[in-house]
Amino acid sequence: MSITRKPRIAIDMDEVLADTIDKFIELYKQRHSHEVILADMHGMEIGQALPPHLSSTVRPYVNERGFFRDIKVMPGSQEVVKALMERYDVYIASAAMEFKYSLEDKQAWLEEHFPFISWTNIIFCGHKILDVDIMIDDRIKNFVTFNGRKLLYTSPHNVLIDGFERVNNWQDVADKLLNR
Amino acid sequence: MSITRKPRIAIDMDEVLADTIDKFIELYKQRHSHEVILADMHGMEIGQALPPHLSSTVRPYVNERGFFRDIKVMPGSQEVVKALMERYDVYIASAAMEFKYSLEDKQAWLEEHFPFISWTNIIFCGHKILDVDIMIDDRIKNFVTFNGRKLLYTSPHNVLIDGFERVNNWQDVADKLLNR
Repeated sequence: MSITRKPRIAIDMDEVLADTIDKFIELYKQRHSHEVILADMHGMEIGQALPPHLSSTVRPYVNERGFFRDIKVMPGSQEVVKALMERYDVYIASAAMEFKYSLEDKQAWLEEHFPFISWTNIIFCGHKILDVDIMIDDRIKNFVTFNGRKLLYTSPHNVLIDGFERVNNWQDVADKLLNR
Repeated sequence: MSITRKPRIAIDMDEVLADTIDKFIELYKQRHSHEVILADMHGMEIGQALPPHLSSTVRPYVNERGFFRDIKVMPGSQEVVKALMERYDVYIASAAMEFKYSLEDKQAWLEEHFPFISWTNIIFCGHKILDVDIMIDDRIKNFVTFNGRKLLYTSPHNVLIDGFERVNNWQDVADKLLNR
């Protein structure tokens, strides 16, 4: 870069800042009295962890207005993101465009839980073609054309994937990026 | 890039794909019987081109749901964008995050007028920190940390700015990027 600037980080939302798996588990418990066991999801997407008669319900649920509005915040993420902002330009980057009605939910969710993130630093996209130095994401597809430092945030669906620098939780992010 | 790919272009929406100035002119004609003369806007933002008692109305109008839904398409943009897609990876990048209620309007507008653009190639953001090769934009602030080729799309507010490669309309874009 020709202009001196703080290093930039792009942080994903689902399964990184937001505990989307927990939302699915709660939803199937409430609406279908079906218990998804987190420990059984090793290497699986939520649709694969459900019994066959429920697997096609995932997409309609995700496309409902409100689905992304009440997801729990990943433990420690607020404090660590706040601390990262002192040393980095922190962007929140979500592939929200895939789910038409998720945009307003995600905006409101960020406003509630991460009010210290300015609108200037929020990105809703499809492909993450971002000019940043570090990406924290649970989907390796988002790393494909990215040449910076990639931190794969552990999630059930990615635990069998090798060869990436990993963070298992927000304490790991702090340890790696804040040298504490 | 380590992976061979088509060059990427990021194209702005307001005053580039969408004739937002025309929308303002129509709106002030209809709601306030006030005629904004395009030729008088030389070097001005819409708020500066309005009489003092109307200048503070711009922001509330832009924050209304629906404002961005019925804007006219910039002449020639659909055909040229379609032609660009054969040679480039075309992304639409709008700083939509500034206007909370603009996101769904802009999604629907793109779906109606640019149905050939996939959701994967739409970006709603604040700062345009994009890893692209070419940017077409009417705001030079979006070029500040961008090292690729910048095409400044002429709009009343930017006509007094020197030193940028310019496109005055979509025919200019075609001439420069499609070698016709």
